[in-house]
Amino acid sequence: MPPAPGDHDARRRDVSEAVWRVLAAHGFGHLTLRAVAAEMGVSTGMLTHYFQSKNALVRYAHAVAEDHTNVPARPAKGLASLREALLDVVPLTPEATVMNRVWVSFWDAAIGDPELGAGEKARYERWRTKLRPHVEAAVAAGEIPATVDIDDVTTAAAALTHGIVVQALFDPDRFPPDRLIQLIDNHLRMLSGQS
Amino acid sequence: MPPAPGDHDARRRDVSEAVWRVLAAHGFGHLTLRAVAAEMGVSTGMLTHYFQSKNALVRYAHAVAEDHTNVPARPAKGLASLREALLDVVPLTPEATVMNRVWVSFWDAAIGDPELGAGEKARYERWRTKLRPHVEAAVAAGEIPATVDIDDVTTAAAALTHGIVVQALFDPDRFPPDRLIQLIDNHLRMLSGQS
Repeated sequence: MPPAPGDHDARRRDVSEAVWRVLAAHGFGHLTLRAVAAEMGVSTGMLTHYFQSKNALVRYAHAVAEDHTNVPARPAKGLASLREALLDVVPLTPEATVMNRVWVSFWDAAIGDPELGAGEKARYERWRTKLRPHVEAAVAAGEIPATVDIDDVTTAAAALTHGIVVQALFDPDRFPPDRLIQLIDNHLRMLSGQS
Repeated sequence: MPPAPGDHDARRRDVSEAVWRVLAAHGFGHLTLRAVAAEMGVSTGMLTHYFQSKNALVRYAHAVAEDHTNVPARPAKGLASLREALLDVVPLTPEATVMNRVWVSFWDAAIGDPELGAGEKARYERWRTKLRPHVEAAVAAGEIPATVDIDDVTTAAAALTHGIVVQALFDPDRFPPDRLIQLIDNHLRMLSGQS
């Protein structure tokens, strides 16, 4: 039986939270209607009112992850705000760790699925677009040599950050927050020409 | 019926190649006994003679991927050999692209599975251990300032490289080989203090 109309929003929140908990605990590869239903303590059949297919659940999971990835844009001031923007992404808190686990876990499916792959490409474009004004401001402020290529610096900052994220996810003892901050700071110091 | 003893090695090679083709085409999330059987044109039942469980197939897939990741250690000479070692990893060729797709696709399952996660942690340790002598040689040769922390430089080089790999996998048009090389070279130039 479909849920009563009045219950719909509350139930939708329950579904969103259950999807997030499954992603956070086990990664995308374990996201199934059955797992979400078990997390909610309901029947798989009930969930088919929300998701007619695995594909619908997958697209919904990405929307849920976007909702949980609430990293606001920061005013672009130069290296200091670039630093903040990069530190927003690395796993300095349990919440940021979960967020990163979920996004890294999406890459497997995205590699084998053109639509999801296009989504990841677009996410990287959005992230670089978000980082770029900080790099431009740093060049304008003379904090980074004006000879650099802005796109290269932006791409490399994103790459270094995600590369650290992946190493940290699999080896958190080696990468506590202060070490993550140090690796970002080393990179920014090199960028400013004071290696 | 189990395969005849004389067929065993040839059949095992067939299985390995089918596992690799499934990984290469679709990523780890699509690796199932059924997909491997379909790739070989045999019944799923036949494959159960080789893999008693999904877990056995998963472990086998990692061994197959290791066999395909034949990146030899290079003599450590300094920045030049560090450069070669990093370029060995980025997707400059179709084969290297497939290799990277497969390894990145493993991360999803590894995030939700302590045994596979420990395997990824160990792989990163091995990679950093392989890169470290190049950094040490670069410092010894005066190519990198002696004030750097060797572990930090090694970790950052690995991070930058894998971060580029992921962006390139989802957006190969933006990251053709010459751009990948340029991003690695930029990093090495910064390391040497000539940003």
